[in-house]
Amino acid sequence: MAQYDAVIVGAGIVGLATAYHIKRERPNDRILIVDKMNAAGQGNTAKSAAMFRCFFYSPTNLTLVDTTVEFFKHVQNQLGVDLKLKWTGYLWLFSKERFKVIEPILRSMGESGLEYELYEADRLADCLSMKTKVMENEEAQMMGLTDVEKGVFVPKAGAIDIDLLVQFYEEEIKKMGGEIRYNTKVNRILVEPEESLGMPSEPFFWQDSKAAGIETNRGTFKAKKTIVAAGVWSNSLLRGVGVFAPMEPIKRQLFSVKASTQSLKQLLNAKGFSEENCVPFTILPEPSVYLKPALEEDAFWLAYGDHFPRAFKLEDDPQPEENYYRYGIYQVITKYFPQFLGTQLYGSWAGQYALNPLDGQPVIFEENNLLVVGSCSGSGNMKCDAIGRIAAALYQDEEYAMLYGKKEFRVDDLSMKNRDVKPEKLII
Amino acid sequence: MAQYDAVIVGAGIVGLATAYHIKRERPNDRILIVDKMNAAGQGNTAKSAAMFRCFFYSPTNLTLVDTTVEFFKHVQNQLGVDLKLKWTGYLWLFSKERFKVIEPILRSMGESGLEYELYEADRLADCLSMKTKVMENEEAQMMGLTDVEKGVFVPKAGAIDIDLLVQFYEEEIKKMGGEIRYNTKVNRILVEPEESLGMPSEPFFWQDSKAAGIETNRGTFKAKKTIVAAGVWSNSLLRGVGVFAPMEPIKRQLFSVKASTQSLKQLLNAKGFSEENCVPFTILPEPSVYLKPALEEDAFWLAYGDHFPRAFKLEDDPQPEENYYRYGIYQVITKYFPQFLGTQLYGSWAGQYALNPLDGQPVIFEENNLLVVGSCSGSGNMKCDAIGRIAAALYQDEEYAMLYGKKEFRVDDLSMKNRDVKPEKLII
Repeated sequence: MAQYDAVIVGAGIVGLATAYHIKRERPNDRILIVDKMNAAGQGNTAKSAAMFRCFFYSPTNLTLVDTTVEFFKHVQNQLGVDLKLKWTGYLWLFSKERFKVIEPILRSMGESGLEYELYEADRLADCLSMKTKVMENEEAQMMGLTDVEKGVFVPKAGAIDIDLLVQFYEEEIKKMGGEIRYNTKVNRILVEPEESLGMPSEPFFWQDSKAAGIETNRGTFKAKKTIVAAGVWSNSLLRGVGVFAPMEPIKRQLFSVKASTQSLKQLLNAKGFSEENCVPFTILPEPSVYLKPALEEDAFWLAYGDHFPRAFKLEDDPQPEENYYRYGIYQVITKYFPQFLGTQLYGSWAGQYALNPLDGQPVIFEENNLLVVGSCSGSGNMKCDAIGRIAAALYQDEEYAMLYGKKEFRVDDLSMKNRDVKPEKLII
Repeated sequence: MAQYDAVIVGAGIVGLATAYHIKRERPNDRILIVDKMNAAGQGNTAKSAAMFRCFFYSPTNLTLVDTTVEFFKHVQNQLGVDLKLKWTGYLWLFSKERFKVIEPILRSMGESGLEYELYEADRLADCLSMKTKVMENEEAQMMGLTDVEKGVFVPKAGAIDIDLLVQFYEEEIKKMGGEIRYNTKVNRILVEPEESLGMPSEPFFWQDSKAAGIETNRGTFKAKKTIVAAGVWSNSLLRGVGVFAPMEPIKRQLFSVKASTQSLKQLLNAKGFSEENCVPFTILPEPSVYLKPALEEDAFWLAYGDHFPRAFKLEDDPQPEENYYRYGIYQVITKYFPQFLGTQLYGSWAGQYALNPLDGQPVIFEENNLLVVGSCSGSGNMKCDAIGRIAAALYQDEEYAMLYGKKEFRVDDLSMKNRDVKPEKLII
């Protein structure tokens, strides 16, 4: 039976980043990644909108994302691996009421050096041919929509081609001698007593016991450390051995619409915001329907992340809901962007967030040689590299991780027991 | 369709106490309790060891238990309803190492007025004919057992006949006009928009929505407030509408042994600890196997609450595991109490805690007209009355609950969002 230093469950972006950094820091350690799918990054990693923004109120969020995005730049610019980074920027649209709440938060962010630019409603109407006054519309009123009072444009934000990043990590891991096994489904985490007595019903409760690898459909793989980084699929494994992490699966849907008309093409290629010369990733006032420019497809992606009464429910193949678009997103977006009136859906898909309902930030901790890396709450792609480094530091029993750009991060800050994450005030 | 002010899911001790206090404070409110079983208190309420101790480090725990126990006394002494309260006391046994950690905690508890008495090892050996030095035994050593250095006897602690308390609450609820429906299984929580537009796919995400009752195998029951107090069965209902509460089901097993020999009878009826003239509820050094005197059955109940790698797994009919007793509890208890050598099991059963893995204390909060009351982590019986009062205060949108004995308790202290519970340092 193979004996590894680490087995990592999940070849999504988080598992890959973790494996990559472990292997970089411990080149001689024998590591194995397993994934139930037939290739890397085929789960919820692939289904994400793959946007990022280096613009958070919470220093925890900001550090995790900013160092990860700087790493993306390094990979693309210095290592010469094209990740198709697009600096589209983010454009948040606020109602008068909401802006009042947000303004002091923005100011304090500005004082910390974060860049943003305010847009008045008129200028937005002008640049984007959008309607900022929607409350005169009876339907919009019934729906509780509000006029746009201000826009906040954030330049250090954009999109990545997440498949390219997956490929980068995967290739590097293989080059360094890491093993990856696909089509390998973990049935349970193997537990052994610290000191075996060779008795059949071990471990007994009076023995100290520890995770010792995984049992899969392709056999048992023993390891000194077992790392669970399987996103929404982590929890059933963790619950199997009584380890708690707050991670609830919640469906997220994306809908794409082609820029098929002149007015949509104009919107998609809106000038003046960024060098990409396109509409920014735009977030409407609450309900915060958002719009992503998908330049390579000549399309928009539209979405909304709903909560109550959206179920927490694990699905292997979640499906987008036509009515969610038709009576939800379409109704909202057309009030602000009449360009979308009469458009047809070009495509749609759904994935799931592994949501941390407590604070929305990642969870990284170790118990009994079992490392849990997850609960990324929809920002796994934009935080992956930092998370991988923190997990690798935990694996090595280090107190601090060194994030990209030589930024130190206390590993325990993301643990359950000694957690210290700063609350976020800017949530989409 | 019936319209209630409140529907309460679960006629376990927590649901009953909640209903009782709501009905007492709002006699005109129309309330309904439903339970999938055919009578009250038939789930995990019935399976508990039904012990209590008014001895906690955490003021949160202490207040919840102490006011509840004072209420038990009131019911028995002033209302004349026999609850078969038995003041057996608790006896904690500590190793030298562990006592060093516990001693300052005990002192600070003593300074707050909590009563306890220290027992030296010799006195314990004498009073209980027990072995305090077990490390000379090779097997005990292999098992990692430790010698008993001290005992801490806590007088304000004992047992209740929980069925009698269930009956008390149930009868009072009925007398006050509350309805209870058994054999009624809740399939899901009903959700409606705050302001309905009469459209079929409501609620849409741009509508505010709220819990509006329950759908059961016996029809739909609408209510202004929906209260989920179903212990380990709560979470599937809550997840169905995306409401998070930390409550993981974990199996707990009890094993009973008859006081069939002279030496066991002597142990059971140990003099000098309390007026009950019996062995106290006794907790061995880690692993903290415990022993409850079950006087009316002339028996002992033995148990141990294990953690890693015990799964978090919902079971409707959890079964005790023979090997858990044979290679676990029996092996430990006989090292300290050789009286149990050679005894046979008389009975055994298992239930489940709804464990709050974050802090082990109850969770009471409201979101969108949905009240969650639970996560009692095995102390629902001893905290039930306080929990019922806090839930009733929340139901009435009060900031403070008045616990038995006119003790105020801030309702939000047990919420998820503004939680303020003091950590416990004395955990069995």
